[in-house]
Amino acid sequence: MDSKTAIRIALDVMGGDHGPDVILAGADIALERHPDIQFSLFGREADVRPILERFPRVAERSTFRHCDVAIRMDDKPSQALRQGRNKSSMWLAIEAVKTGEAQVAVSAGNTGALMAMAKFCLRTMANIERPAIAAIWPTIRGESIVLDVGATIGADAQQLLDLSVMGAAMARALFHIERPTVGLLNIGVEEIKGQDEIREAGRLLKEGEIPNLDYRGFVEGTDLGKGTVDVVVTEGFTGNIALKTAEGTARQIASYLRAAMTRTWLARLGYILAKSAFDRLRDKMDPRKVNGGVFLGLNGVVIKSHGSSDAEGTAAAIDVAYAMAANGLLTKIETDLSEVYARMAVSSANVPPQAQDEAVS
Amino acid sequence: MDSKTAIRIALDVMGGDHGPDVILAGADIALERHPDIQFSLFGREADVRPILERFPRVAERSTFRHCDVAIRMDDKPSQALRQGRNKSSMWLAIEAVKTGEAQVAVSAGNTGALMAMAKFCLRTMANIERPAIAAIWPTIRGESIVLDVGATIGADAQQLLDLSVMGAAMARALFHIERPTVGLLNIGVEEIKGQDEIREAGRLLKEGEIPNLDYRGFVEGTDLGKGTVDVVVTEGFTGNIALKTAEGTARQIASYLRAAMTRTWLARLGYILAKSAFDRLRDKMDPRKVNGGVFLGLNGVVIKSHGSSDAEGTAAAIDVAYAMAANGLLTKIETDLSEVYARMAVSSANVPPQAQDEAVS
Repeated sequence: MDSKTAIRIALDVMGGDHGPDVILAGADIALERHPDIQFSLFGREADVRPILERFPRVAERSTFRHCDVAIRMDDKPSQALRQGRNKSSMWLAIEAVKTGEAQVAVSAGNTGALMAMAKFCLRTMANIERPAIAAIWPTIRGESIVLDVGATIGADAQQLLDLSVMGAAMARALFHIERPTVGLLNIGVEEIKGQDEIREAGRLLKEGEIPNLDYRGFVEGTDLGKGTVDVVVTEGFTGNIALKTAEGTARQIASYLRAAMTRTWLARLGYILAKSAFDRLRDKMDPRKVNGGVFLGLNGVVIKSHGSSDAEGTAAAIDVAYAMAANGLLTKIETDLSEVYARMAVSSANVPPQAQDEAVS
Repeated sequence: MDSKTAIRIALDVMGGDHGPDVILAGADIALERHPDIQFSLFGREADVRPILERFPRVAERSTFRHCDVAIRMDDKPSQALRQGRNKSSMWLAIEAVKTGEAQVAVSAGNTGALMAMAKFCLRTMANIERPAIAAIWPTIRGESIVLDVGATIGADAQQLLDLSVMGAAMARALFHIERPTVGLLNIGVEEIKGQDEIREAGRLLKEGEIPNLDYRGFVEGTDLGKGTVDVVVTEGFTGNIALKTAEGTARQIASYLRAAMTRTWLARLGYILAKSAFDRLRDKMDPRKVNGGVFLGLNGVVIKSHGSSDAEGTAAAIDVAYAMAANGLLTKIETDLSEVYARMAVSSANVPPQAQDEAVS
């Protein structure tokens, strides 16, 4: 996509813990960075209009559509679908992607409901059975992509291959790397190294010689923070545990640091002198800076912003949405997947007849 | 066990990346803290004797037995068993537990080999199919126990229940809590909450009303660092990924902190003033302080010390071994498990006949 063309982002203004205020403030920050964004806003008119007046820049670049229903943060997915289909701000934001009105949708609403609606409205891509959520993971080297972080529990070898291809396409779109490095998350004990499906996925990735990714083998939990590879692939249960364990560890260390720096007057003085360094550290560790889980495997791109995001966090999620749309993530995934599946069809057609017999027996 | 009785610890002096020097220095530190320890040392005489002379306190409290074979850090488990059974320092340390010569064995040798030998020599307990490794996890509140962190991939509901009982027994022995709180590690998305086996294990734990543990339901990755429960239970793949992700995140933040504190002269000055606070923080984050993976489910207790441990780390692992032996971990596990299995047998015998018919149909 030509970056000169405006990017239209569908925004669920009612999602998140803090409501329209924070969402629109975030949109305003994002517009400052990307003046070519246009928004399709969805929300309750009585709530949104008065706030929108405070953000004239956003108002000027937006269309607004009223909707009666707002999905609550504790609505169950089935409940949300029942009550919110065709009429909630969340649904309408997703539908704007389906109709082509917008290139990407952003919501800070609850993950389960958003995923259920996105699946129902957009459907999974050809060859993809189950969607994934990709997280942008801060590392010592910069950033990596980790997926799946919780959309789907369990994955067979083929699904791990699909995740690898989709994650690599996202890395190409986000980091502008031609052949992102990919690793499969595994444990390091020899001989019991990994479940069968991970070993089999490793074989497929190695032998597949997939043009748009550079498979580097197994990686361990410690490699996540190191940034050993651009894309770390795992099924959704383990990915979710890893993501939340890292978040928890970061918070734990921040709490140790706070306690240490306020314990003595010398430490407090040192803290004051080194304040800019601490601010820099806080910045590095700031979860708002890497906000935005990307739903992959659907016929449209949806970005999940953290429910607790403030305006900065919301802007970061909109930045990710912008990058995904401007760099044609969906087309990249579609092209890469169809190429991989075409290759696999050819290579299985090329198996000599006796080998096919053996496989059957 | 009466704490007045000496605790005898079998020590594989050849294990680890640094060799006998560090292991014996660690033993010396541990002896300072627990003067009633006696050691059964196993290693290559030519390597160990000269070093032992430098630690007269250890020499005085130890027996030494020469063995020709030392398991290498990169030996595969099968290879280690073939070459090291009945004659390596690792094997003989484990065997000393089997024969009753020592109450607990400690090795910093490679995990796969140590587990294979421990399984082969000690065998699993009655009712336990597969062993586990329990880690001591530093939290904001203190310490928790997390298991399994990598002995066995996958676990059914019954095995998760076994892990819960064994982990709780270890918490009783280590933290002196009467009814440790237990949580099952799970992911937080509603309606797809967890694999079937985790839900089923939750039901067993809730309905079992197990006297020596207080089941608190599901916990998430963020709860690990918070110390929400005393014992976090998960199967070995996820547990290993969580453990290594936390280690990696801690190292990542330490590297951010170092970079921030050396960037400007003001930050450097602040760092110097607050140095004692930073030392305290480093202490809190020091992985050596919580060294020692405990093998559970075998007819004997074996402690795995980190391969890269220095003398401090080795001493920490010996401390854990001491606590496990002095507080009768093995007896606690045996008693608790047999009580749980007896209850389960009674409750299934109490099922009314029509319900049994239904279960069959």
